[in-house]
Amino acid sequence: MPVVVRNTPRTDLEVVDGLAEAGVATVHEAQGRTGLLRADIRPIFRPSRVAGNALTCEVAPGDNWTIHVAVEQVQPGDVLVVTPTSPCDDGYVGELLATSLRAHGCRAVVIDAGVRDVADMTQMGFPVWSKAISAKGTVKETPGNVQTPIVCAGAYVRPGDVVVADDDGVVVVPREQAPAVLEAARKREANEAAKRSQLTSGELGLDIYDMRGRLAGKGLRYVDYLDTP
Amino acid sequence: MPVVVRNTPRTDLEVVDGLAEAGVATVHEAQGRTGLLRADIRPIFRPSRVAGNALTCEVAPGDNWTIHVAVEQVQPGDVLVVTPTSPCDDGYVGELLATSLRAHGCRAVVIDAGVRDVADMTQMGFPVWSKAISAKGTVKETPGNVQTPIVCAGAYVRPGDVVVADDDGVVVVPREQAPAVLEAARKREANEAAKRSQLTSGELGLDIYDMRGRLAGKGLRYVDYLDTP
Amino acid sequence: MPVVVRNTPRTDLEVVDGLAEAGVATVHEAQGRTGLLRADIRPIFRPSRVAGNALTCEVAPGDNWTIHVAVEQVQPGDVLVVTPTSPCDDGYVGELLATSLRAHGCRAVVIDAGVRDVADMTQMGFPVWSKAISAKGTVKETPGNVQTPIVCAGAYVRPGDVVVADDDGVVVVPREQAPAVLEAARKREANEAAKRSQLTSGELGLDIYDMRGRLAGKGLRYVDYLDTP
Amino acid sequence: MPVVVRNTPRTDLEVVDGLAEAGVATVHEAQGRTGLLRADIRPIFRPSRVAGNALTCEVAPGDNWTIHVAVEQVQPGDVLVVTPTSPCDDGYVGELLATSLRAHGCRAVVIDAGVRDVADMTQMGFPVWSKAISAKGTVKETPGNVQTPIVCAGAYVRPGDVVVADDDGVVVVPREQAPAVLEAARKREANEAAKRSQLTSGELGLDIYDMRGRLAGKGLRYVDYLDTP
Amino acid sequence: MPVVVRNTPRTDLEVVDGLAEAGVATVHEAQGRTGLLRADIRPIFRPSRVAGNALTCEVAPGDNWTIHVAVEQVQPGDVLVVTPTSPCDDGYVGELLATSLRAHGCRAVVIDAGVRDVADMTQMGFPVWSKAISAKGTVKETPGNVQTPIVCAGAYVRPGDVVVADDDGVVVVPREQAPAVLEAARKREANEAAKRSQLTSGELGLDIYDMRGRLAGKGLRYVDYLDTP
Amino acid sequence: MPVVVRNTPRTDLEVVDGLAEAGVATVHEAQGRTGLLRADIRPIFRPSRVAGNALTCEVAPGDNWTIHVAVEQVQPGDVLVVTPTSPCDDGYVGELLATSLRAHGCRAVVIDAGVRDVADMTQMGFPVWSKAISAKGTVKETPGNVQTPIVCAGAYVRPGDVVVADDDGVVVVPREQAPAVLEAARKREANEAAKRSQLTSGELGLDIYDMRGRLAGKGLRYVDYLDTP
Repeated sequence: MPVVVRNTPRTDLEVVDGLAEAGVATVHEAQGRTGLLRADIRPIFRPSRVAGNALTCEVAPGDNWTIHVAVEQVQPGDVLVVTPTSPCDDGYVGELLATSLRAHGCRAVVIDAGVRDVADMTQMGFPVWSKAISAKGTVKETPGNVQTPIVCAGAYVRPGDVVVADDDGVVVVPREQAPAVLEAARKREANEAAKRSQLTSGELGLDIYDMRGRLAGKGLRYVDYLDTP
Repeated sequence: MPVVVRNTPRTDLEVVDGLAEAGVATVHEAQGRTGLLRADIRPIFRPSRVAGNALTCEVAPGDNWTIHVAVEQVQPGDVLVVTPTSPCDDGYVGELLATSLRAHGCRAVVIDAGVRDVADMTQMGFPVWSKAISAKGTVKETPGNVQTPIVCAGAYVRPGDVVVADDDGVVVVPREQAPAVLEAARKREANEAAKRSQLTSGELGLDIYDMRGRLAGKGLRYVDYLDTP
Repeated sequence: MPVVVRNTPRTDLEVVDGLAEAGVATVHEAQGRTGLLRADIRPIFRPSRVAGNALTCEVAPGDNWTIHVAVEQVQPGDVLVVTPTSPCDDGYVGELLATSLRAHGCRAVVIDAGVRDVADMTQMGFPVWSKAISAKGTVKETPGNVQTPIVCAGAYVRPGDVVVADDDGVVVVPREQAPAVLEAARKREANEAAKRSQLTSGELGLDIYDMRGRLAGKGLRYVDYLDTP
Repeated sequence: MPVVVRNTPRTDLEVVDGLAEAGVATVHEAQGRTGLLRADIRPIFRPSRVAGNALTCEVAPGDNWTIHVAVEQVQPGDVLVVTPTSPCDDGYVGELLATSLRAHGCRAVVIDAGVRDVADMTQMGFPVWSKAISAKGTVKETPGNVQTPIVCAGAYVRPGDVVVADDDGVVVVPREQAPAVLEAARKREANEAAKRSQLTSGELGLDIYDMRGRLAGKGLRYVDYLDTP
Repeated sequence: MPVVVRNTPRTDLEVVDGLAEAGVATVHEAQGRTGLLRADIRPIFRPSRVAGNALTCEVAPGDNWTIHVAVEQVQPGDVLVVTPTSPCDDGYVGELLATSLRAHGCRAVVIDAGVRDVADMTQMGFPVWSKAISAKGTVKETPGNVQTPIVCAGAYVRPGDVVVADDDGVVVVPREQAPAVLEAARKREANEAAKRSQLTSGELGLDIYDMRGRLAGKGLRYVDYLDTP
Repeated sequence: MPVVVRNTPRTDLEVVDGLAEAGVATVHEAQGRTGLLRADIRPIFRPSRVAGNALTCEVAPGDNWTIHVAVEQVQPGDVLVVTPTSPCDDGYVGELLATSLRAHGCRAVVIDAGVRDVADMTQMGFPVWSKAISAKGTVKETPGNVQTPIVCAGAYVRPGDVVVADDDGVVVVPREQAPAVLEAARKREANEAAKRSQLTSGELGLDIYDMRGRLAGKGLRYVDYLDTP
């Protein structure tokens, strides 16, 4: 039976906003290379970068009724995360729903399905990550779940987990780990800044990361072109 | 045997232009959610929006000869709609054909195959919706049909049906129904304007569309997070 | 055993730059419609256009160690061409590797896999053609080959072959044929300029290319719409 | 509004059965290489071969209600042809529906979507061609059309057109052309029998079809391996 | 850091075996149409039917080291469930690993990646559901997790959840719900038996399920072919 | 210009047959995990196992003329390897061509495109590995190359290289390395036999391959389920 769970936990928006600043690739590394959604979930316009508390929503194929239910549960700083119960490319979200979501403080939509009115949503500056763009309309016959744990595009997402999305894709951070991941991400960024200046000046990763010995141990050989068959 | 059909009917351009203004999602809804092409037919640049009379063209795989035949049949306000007889991503249309098509009044190309010279066609502002971008050249050995009914990207298209295309995809409107669909689209737009202002002010779709009772009837329950397992 | 081949031949940069100017579609035609990579290898930003000497690199799935090895082999004017030993969408190249590659004179990356930090690389103006965009990080455990012949996205590429890439895709020109292909490309461009002005003025390809007789010979018929069933 | 069309025309079963005997590849050739469904529509068991009158059915995504409506319209010798209004892999047909269809004389199902209970339907010997196998259940909320013209897997199908299906795929023959296509198919088979015995004895197609001159005219050259670079 | 979790809970094998008997489609319905893996996870031979306790395993792309670690954790009645951290089709499991798994009581493998030696595993009668068949070998460099919750082919799987697999695909039943789902599945089967005999005798689902009124309420109309345009 | 190369080298059939016996997975490992074709090249029936000298053939999309040319070049023990110049699923080879190929000693077909008449070719026992099964016919207008080096399904294949194909897929062995690869494959098989008996008796790969220390060095930890969050 379909259910809406209320009073779910959320992550502090200061932590959320810090993770947005770090970006998807850094956050993904900082939490041990976990939590990425499938790479075919792409932004409808670029550049886009956002983070928010996951507001989860499970919908029937070709049926966006549950999203109307979800709008009432939005709190400022949320990102709506939608998964269909079986693969579907229909246009579940358009400009009217985006308007409604934004009016309640929703920052973005991440959906393993299709969206439409992308020209309008681009003009609104409302960021959306989706599997497809499709004008196909949906019905309102079969309600699904709101704010239950879901699998979206291969990632497990619970209400209040942090969703970080940018031009590289989408990553989910479990809410309990969000502060620690933010700290690790900031350390990583500091470290990268130093590396960036070395690499810009022409130093080699082979030397900076001291790789030559280990490569030789793995059998890497250097030969001259004239000695190859 | 390959055939070119001449003197096919066309839809009045005033109706065609009205449908362009309404856009794909609205037109698709206005005609009962029918007529969409597959969602992998995408514009080569965005934003793009156009409508026109379908000039249909069926080509052999890897062979664009028939498109040269089709150019002669172009009338101002046409959109060339091309389908291969088996799936093919080759670059059937490039900047030279686009130049020729435009010279005769063709407004756009919709093709369930590939195109090339996309940088040039983007600079020309010549809109194209295609399944692929590919530099692969084609031969001129096997003529096909021009202005016969075809299936393009899953939709049935006859000469003079209206093709509407924008950033959401492509929809076909049977020519007999075009005036009625335009009228329905305009009503729909008027209705949406009212809804938009309600939603912008924070009213919920649940209330505007009076969904709560029907949702309860379908078994939707609200529970508190603390009461979930 | 993994190997790095040094002192591989390269193509003269004057020829390389001429091929860049001609662009992918023209070069592909000029060398007899050969050498194209699969059409799903797409630029991360548009417009992009570049040519360079192929610096080849074969990597293990989910492992970008060999790319660090390859950086040391870069010479100004090279384009790094990367292929995984089995299909993989992970983000092999990001902003730090791009910085390092550019510091050594590498002009671009072509990869039959994923890349990340695409917002940064777009801002840097560092052109990349890839199969996917993915934030997924890679390990450094299994070295592969540098500057050996490889198959990348369906095309055979040897060190020093010319890689030409633009918005239409990527083509490879064998280094021995590069000067001849450049010459053929220039002739083709000259010929196209003449055709372009004829087509702009409304002349038909049917007449310019003298196709009507051959089409009739293949059985093409013209019929009137009223005479069709 | 959804509609069921009654008293649609059907093709004579003697013609239908003749087309089944000829098989898909021969029928497809005999009608000028038209009418094939997409190649990803595959039989759930092999070998399978059947032909029948198309009983068309258009269903909503994830909703098989209309198929129950269609069962009542079955006449002996029909093949149920199902298309969803947007792509969907759900299991629309299982063993119970197959039992019901067979009880009314339906010979097979062709569906551009998923089916389930394939082990049971295999044991029943009830042939099915589908895009997917999926256990995913469907709802009964949105009725669609029965016995209207549809596009199924890229082919246009009207009620009473002949559907021929075997291990090579599925082809549709317009009912008006069915007798002529059957005649052409039989001629083709007779011709192939002669060719088969020539080819079995080692004669070359190059000679049987007199291709050598035309190949030379197209520029085909024979060279010795020792003379290649 | 990679981890192996020991002493994880398991579901009683009597319940597990009951679920195997019910089969995937029935179990999926009995638990409210949840828990299905993606439909592209297919058996390497048919018919296959099995159920077992999930022994979960998360592997790096192109690296099957963790599966060797998992073998030690097998208990009789387990089904090994493997997911890569990014999409990979390599052949993670072959005949030697299958031999080893079977020696410890493992009943089957479900893997969102590739397997090899399928002729041998078919001859052994060792059932495998996989996304791909590929001879590509894997390395042993990066250990992953064993017996932690994973997402496999779109489904969330914890150690000791019940995995049911047959020719229709794979479904996961949370271990806490397994007895209740088994009971519901048996009721469903009993109900289906009655329906099957009605349908076999030619009764219509329209009547058995009393659908006619509700269909009319949704606007379904019956028209005569001669009255259509 | 299209070319047929005659008098190409071939590999000794004793070596070829030894490689067939070893099978694809073993040969692939024995030559350093190289030479595999894409995993979507699948046998039309199972089990199938064969090896032969590559007879290469490059065809235009939707055009099988070159295969007729290739038949004349067949020598006993050859395997025809076909690649289209751009992706195409059409049915290039059917029962008549298979009959002709077999009459000249061709053992099998490997094709990165479609085939048809699969029921007939299955009954003939003529093994074929293809990307697709499609009844779509092809034309005879554009000749391509025979016995030139090609890329087929991602692998580089030269005339006389050894093609080994079985239920796991297809691998290519460069003719110069074939004897050495055969020797390595036989050693590998001998080694596997010993491992198989150890694994059958329940010994663990962890111990046989002495993995425990290295796993600990990579950080693998064992924890109790009760100690996890």
